[in-house]
Formats: sequence, structure tokens, C-alpha cells
Amino acid sequence: MLEKRIRRADLKDKIMSAEDAAMLFEDGMTVATSGFTPAGYPKEVPLALAKRAERGDKIGITLITGASVGDELDGVLTRAGVIKRRFPYQTHSDLRDSINKGNIYYQDMHLSHVPQYIDYGFFGEIHIAVVEALAITEEGGIIPTTSVGISPHAIKNAKKVIVEINTSQPMELEGVHDIYIPNKPPNREPIPIIHPADRIGTSYIPCDPDKIKAIVITDKKDKVRPLGSIDEDSKKISGYIIEFLEHEVKMNRMPKNLLPLQSGVGSVANAVLGGIVDSKFENLTCYTEVIQDAMFDLIDEGKVTVASGTSFSPSEEGLKRLIKNMKHYAKHCILRPMEISNNPEVTRRLGVIAMNTAIEVDIYGHVNSTNIMGSKMMNGIGGSGDFTRNAYISIFTTVSTAKNGDISSIVPMVSHVDHTEHDVEVIVTEQGIADLRGLSPRERAKKIIKNCAHPDYQHVLMDYLKRAEKEKFKYQPHVLEEALSFHDRFLKTGSMKIK
Amino acid sequence: MLEKRIRRADLKDKIMSAEDAAMLFEDGMTVATSGFTPAGYPKEVPLALAKRAERGDKIGITLITGASVGDELDGVLTRAGVIKRRFPYQTHSDLRDSINKGNIYYQDMHLSHVPQYIDYGFFGEIHIAVVEALAITEEGGIIPTTSVGISPHAIKNAKKVIVEINTSQPMELEGVHDIYIPNKPPNREPIPIIHPADRIGTSYIPCDPDKIKAIVITDKKDKVRPLGSIDEDSKKISGYIIEFLEHEVKMNRMPKNLLPLQSGVGSVANAVLGGIVDSKFENLTCYTEVIQDAMFDLIDEGKVTVASGTSFSPSEEGLKRLIKNMKHYAKHCILRPMEISNNPEVTRRLGVIAMNTAIEVDIYGHVNSTNIMGSKMMNGIGGSGDFTRNAYISIFTTVSTAKNGDISSIVPMVSHVDHTEHDVEVIVTEQGIADLRGLSPRERAKKIIKNCAHPDYQHVLMDYLKRAEKEKFKYQPHVLEEALSFHDRFLKTGSMKIK
Repeated sequence: MLEKRIRRADLKDKIMSAEDAAMLFEDGMTVATSGFTPAGYPKEVPLALAKRAERGDKIGITLITGASVGDELDGVLTRAGVIKRRFPYQTHSDLRDSINKGNIYYQDMHLSHVPQYIDYGFFGEIHIAVVEALAITEEGGIIPTTSVGISPHAIKNAKKVIVEINTSQPMELEGVHDIYIPNKPPNREPIPIIHPADRIGTSYIPCDPDKIKAIVITDKKDKVRPLGSIDEDSKKISGYIIEFLEHEVKMNRMPKNLLPLQSGVGSVANAVLGGIVDSKFENLTCYTEVIQDAMFDLIDEGKVTVASGTSFSPSEEGLKRLIKNMKHYAKHCILRPMEISNNPEVTRRLGVIAMNTAIEVDIYGHVNSTNIMGSKMMNGIGGSGDFTRNAYISIFTTVSTAKNGDISSIVPMVSHVDHTEHDVEVIVTEQGIADLRGLSPRERAKKIIKNCAHPDYQHVLMDYLKRAEKEKFKYQPHVLEEALSFHDRFLKTGSMKIK
Repeated sequence: MLEKRIRRADLKDKIMSAEDAAMLFEDGMTVATSGFTPAGYPKEVPLALAKRAERGDKIGITLITGASVGDELDGVLTRAGVIKRRFPYQTHSDLRDSINKGNIYYQDMHLSHVPQYIDYGFFGEIHIAVVEALAITEEGGIIPTTSVGISPHAIKNAKKVIVEINTSQPMELEGVHDIYIPNKPPNREPIPIIHPADRIGTSYIPCDPDKIKAIVITDKKDKVRPLGSIDEDSKKISGYIIEFLEHEVKMNRMPKNLLPLQSGVGSVANAVLGGIVDSKFENLTCYTEVIQDAMFDLIDEGKVTVASGTSFSPSEEGLKRLIKNMKHYAKHCILRPMEISNNPEVTRRLGVIAMNTAIEVDIYGHVNSTNIMGSKMMNGIGGSGDFTRNAYISIFTTVSTAKNGDISSIVPMVSHVDHTEHDVEVIVTEQGIADLRGLSPRERAKKIIKNCAHPDYQHVLMDYLKRAEKEKFKYQPHVLEEALSFHDRFLKTGSMKIK
């Protein structure tokens, strides 16, 4: 069994228990791991490290991952007090709580910046890389599992590497990955991708075998997250987007088979993509971050020929389907380092259609993707900025209200800006769609309020706009003392509605 | 004389007066012109068009340029009521007034987006391109003058082309330009620049001679803007940046001759770059937007080997110096289409050091580059986002106060966001420098207040932060009802200071 998984004989001496591997960590270390969404992250070693800390060993680390990871990494290490500083994205409730209580230092980063930050030395020394692997090749090359994320850069830059061989990951994953690490400036060359299907690298991550200090064997499965069922609101949003794309094709602004699609992470993004199954579009390609359940449907229906991403992020049923039909999906899927999946160069060259979700949008088209009421971290910006900023066209979706109608997702001024008016081209809610291209701020405001805001809030938003337009400066008019009043009211009364 | 300027005999029939050329315009047209800063913009035709409107002809147009342009275009057409809609940047006081009075629709865009917007058809039909030229080649190729901007895309997409041959522009400019137009997706290929000195295109803009409907001869000079003298504050800012860059070299995070420098437009940016003349750095390269006076100093001192941009934007003295020594500077300078000078792909590949100016910065590192008090358009975002977002490292500079101390450039929350916390890495004022890499929001706040805020405002900013930290959410804490209070106070009392 292990012959296939550890193909280099001398490395078998490095097999040890997770407990022994956990002894390699020291207080104050910076640790970079595999994992992007709850897929392909290390499980046994962080569990053992947490136990070590719970036994009283003083261990505080800086943790860098690809994106969110599962409970066996973010959850257990947060609860054990091991994570002191965290980059660049998270979704775990315990970790989020600690961040919002001010107990863990968190920096929310563009995902495409993280690998080069590691390479440039901006994070300082990377003491240990912990990566889940399908297998280790004869040359010491490390084959990733269900995600690639920052693993190539973590392995390249870390002083020590710990490998978790996960025997629950199907061997059919071998060949899915395409590993390419750009040189650092001033020696960086063009990334030679001109089609989402292009393979430009190796199927494994090169690694100096001497750096591998421990190999831990596990069969713990990725603790994937459920995907919400596709509700009426999502169907409407998906419908507006499809209609919009059909119009763009009709106007000769896009080819018949569109341009490569990018779709964010989570249930709404999955539903939006899912709507395409019933559309007339064919021969589509995807250049995106995560490959979720809807993508398997699109591949099975022959709608999508290739899906390039950095991670498989299916639901539990999706994971079963993936593992069962790995050979089939491997023909249509490529997993790349997130430096490449999210790369501005490639995104702009391919002309990606970026579709991401917003927490709130303001009347002038600024988008908040991260901070609820301006202060409370939800998850992070993830790759939404990487794609939005460099897309052929950028689309943001949100349901027009939240908290049973007490929050309007359309507000006079967003309480935090992640995507500026310069980057946001189309807003879609279940109420309708606003194409903002070529419009001045006040034209945008009228269109967003009319097409996208919930009827319960349209009047008060229009009233705000009209009063703002009477102020001295009429370019992007605001009544500054009221600009954040929706949020302030919610914090004080529990509703953005005026009682 | 004209033999050198119009090298294709049959085109001489197209020579006409500016008044006749102005008759080609119709109400409702979309017009795209050359010009980037007051350099290389058409002069005679817009003057004649304004006169036509002043005589009573109803002419309203959408005007798209590279960036700001001179009075003979933005000024006269604004005053004559010809400009109805304007993209993507401006600095002219009359135009700015009309925008802020709500009389002209303005969309403030990332400059690198504009050429592809034209190509993609997002602006609709381009009825007329008006471009200043040094000469027209035998093939009908158009040689630009002191800027390139959007001219290649305007000429490619316009139905009709009007050329202004400007005999005041020195023939030595020929060969300075490098014109390359990427294909549209899905047929776009890598832009083959791997060093700022690389030339990848032609020295002229290809143009179907049949599209040239008028040629107007002029000798009107570029109406360049003065550059402020280098004051003490600028010297301090420049000094902090040089110290920072020296430290990065020492830490092995940058090569000895740095990476390509980008520096914004205007006096402060010019002064920042000027400071490098007295530094120890050598063999520097620049991959930037505009080439201002300080660059000539750097070239003369042998500090800079190549400066790549899209425009010469010197002062009056600088322009004289440029014209007098054109042959010399032409060896070290390349003017590219702004799609290339500002391209995310190239910026990220080369690892550009982005240095841009801010109107205000907040304690968490968000930057406002465009809207004073959240509503009044100053100029526009220009290329600052193109470079910042894709840079090796992004630096923003601002003097810590404005209006004789009544405005603090460091505020609790910026009144408009152009560059988010995810994009901004270093803040510099005359008070000091804050390196924000790797810091959580509250750590950034303390550093920015301590290092960059003016002493007159440090106490009140720190007081805000401390009270915000007592609120419920401690990730990026705000007291929402006070977040914009600095601005509100200024609007009501004329000062951000608490009386």
C-alpha cells in the first residue's frame, strides 16, 4: 500500500507518529500549510499539536494557509490557543470569534498576494511547512490532494517540511495538478497560459528530500461543508446573470461560448453557476478558485469542457461523487497553485467573467465583502479582488435583505470597502440587475436603488439620494452625518428600518 | 517641410482647416482623443468645435481621453457646453467645477481599463478619433507626439479619424514610441515585456488611410503645467522612502538596483523621485505612467537607465530641456499605449515599486485618492490603482495636514475609498513612515497614528481608536456614528480640529 504513496525508499525512515511530528514546533514559529477551503489541509499533526498545547506546552504560532481550512486545523488550534496570528482567510466560527474579540491578530489578504509574500520574505522566515499529500515521488516530489493553495511556495521556502500522507484521498487525483512557480522579479517571465486548459508545469511539487523531517500517515477525510439547497432568490439571481450574458453575446461583446467563468465560494455562488446547467450556453470554460458541486453537473451535462481552479470544494455528497468518478472529472479539471489560479496576469489575459458575492453594496457601487457593520470580520476578501480587479466583466451578487428584512444589502455608503466603484461593473440581487458600465455616480445610484434594492428600502434610499443631491458637491453626493446611519440604526435598534 | 510630416501623397488631399474638420462632429457623438496629461492632445480641432458650439450649433459629445488634457480641449469644450459626458480622468478647473455642480456626467476609471473598454465596445460606438501626430508614415501609420494614451485603441475602433499634425513637436520624437495592441480575449497572448527597456511593437499606430477624414496642421505647443518647487515636506517624504528602500535591499527583499519604479503625477511625486538623485542607488529602471522633470535629472545623473511611460509630462522648463535634448532622452525613454504602461500583467511581472499620492488615509490603511469630503471629485484615480494593486510593494504619500492644518490627512475612516487595506502596504507623511505589511488592523492603526499623523491630531485619533476598541467588534473597530465626524466637522466649522 505505502509503496505507491512513498516511492522513495529512504524517506520511509521519516515516518513517525503525529505526536512525534508535533514536537518539531516551537513557540513563535511561522507555519505555512496546505489546504484551501476544507480540502487538502493537514489534519493529524495540528490535532497532535493542539494536544501538546493543552498538556501545557507553551506554543504560539503564526499560521498561513491557502484559504479557510477544516476544524482539525483552524478549530483545534484556535481552541488550544496555539494560533496567535493568522493569514490570509478563514471561515471557522471559533477562529472568527477570536478574531472579533481581538484575541488573534488577523490580516485579510488578496489570496494571489500570499504566495509571493512568502517568496519575497515579507512574512519573514517560514519555519515549518505542513502539507497533506497523495504521495511522494521517487525524486521527493510531493503530490497534493484535493487542493494546491500555497503548498508549492510553503515547501519551497520552509526550513522543515512535514508531510501528511492521506490514504483516504484517491490515487486517481495524480495528474490533476499543474504546478508552476513563477520566478521572483526581476527574473519573472510570462505565465504561458493562454487557455484555461493549458498545462504549464509538473504534476508534483518539487521538494528537497532533506527538508522532509516527518511523514505522518492518516486516513482522515476532508471535513467538507454542506452546500445550501438552491432557493428561489438564488434562482432569480442566476436567471438575471444568464439573461445579461445572453445580451452581451447578442451585442457581440462576448463570444457565443462566453469567456472563462469565475465563481466565488459558497452556496449562492454554487447556485449561480448551477443555473447555467439549464441555459443554452455550451463549450464553456472556467478559470476559477474552487470547483464546487455545480461544476460537476456542468461537466456531466457537457456544458463545461474544462474547469481550472486551486481546490475541489464539494459538499459531502459532492465529495463522494468526486471520489467515485475521479478518473472522469480528472479529465476536465486542473488544480493549480493559487498564485496561478488567482493570477492578475492570467485573469486579465483570458478575460475572466468574475462573479462574486457581496455582504453589502452602496448606491454608488462600492462593495463590502468582509466586515459586517464595518467592524466585524466575516471571512475575508479571498480571491474576489484578484478576479474582480482584472476581469473582463465583474459581477457582484447579494440577496437584497438579510436578517429577516432588518438589514438592507443596499445602503447609502458601505461600512467597509473591499471593491471600489472603479472595479464593480454589475450588481445583481433577487430584485434585479444593474449594469453600471459607463455611468456617473448619480446615474448608478438611481439604477441600483430602482433595480436592486428591496422595495421596503427603496423609498428611504431614494430620499437619502435626493437630500444628498442638494448638498454642495454633486459628483458623488453624500450627507456625511447620515451616510452610515443605516448601520448605526441597526446596531442600536436591531433593524435598519426607521421605526 | 510637410513632406516629412505627411509621407503618403494621397493623404495631402485631406488637409483642411480646423473649422472644416469641426464640421464632422454631430450632436450625441462619442469622441476619443489623444493626450495624457497636457501632452500630445489635439488643440486646433477642439478650439474650432467650441467656436462652432458658441455660434449656436447644438453639439454635445461624450469625450474619452487618455487622462487629463490641456485647456484647448477640456477647457474650451467645457466652457462651450460641448462636453456632456467625460471619461476617465481630468484635472481642469472648469471641467472639475462642472462635474461637481452636477452638469457633466463623469466616470472616474482605472486608466488601464479604458483602452479595453473601447476595444470591447463597452463605450458603444466611437464615432470620431482626434489625435495629435508627429507625422503620418507612407503606410498611413500615425506617429504620436509627447504621449500615447488611448490613441492606438481610439484609431483602431473609430469610424473616422482626424489627425492634427503638430509641427512644434520635434521630429526626434520618432522612434520613442512602442505601439502594441493586445488581442481581445479569448485570443489574447502574453505581453512579451520582461524588462522595462523591452520594445515589442511598432514606432507608429497602424491606421487604415481611408478612415482619415481630415488632417489639420498646427504649431500650438503643449500647454504644460508648472511643477511646484521641492519643499521641506517633500524632501522628508522622499528621505523616508529612500531609507525604507535601502532597508529592503539590506534585508535581501529587493535587488541592489531595486525594481522598476512607478511614481504618480504632480509636484509631490516629482519631488519624491527627485530625492533619488542624491541617493546611492544606481542603474535604476522606471516602469511608470508619466515622465516628469525629475526623470530627466535621474537620466542625466546616470541613475536611471530606462524610463518607460505613456507620456512626457514636464514643466515648461522641462519641456524646453526635453525638446532641446530629445535625441539624448529618446535613448532612455519609451512611450507606450496606456494599456501597456499601466498593465496589471506587466506591473506584476516586473515587480513595480508603486509610489502614489493620497488625499487622505485612514487609521486602518484605506486610501482616498479622489473625493474630497467623500463627494467632491478632485481629479480621479488615474493609474494609481493599476499600479498599486499589482505592485511588488505599494507606497502612498501625503502631507499629514492640509488647509493650514485644518484638515488632517489621517482620519478615523476615509470618506471615500479608492485603495483598500488589502492593497496599501506603506504610508509616508512628512512625520514618518508606517510599514503595514503583516499587521492586523489595530496594529496598523497604532502605527499610522504614531508615525504618520500630525501631532495636532494624534491625541484625538488615538482617543477614537481607544473608544472604538471598547465597542463590541474588535477586529477593525469603529464608532460608526463618529467614523466620519472629522469630515462632518470640517464641513460645518471649516476645521477638523475640535474647538
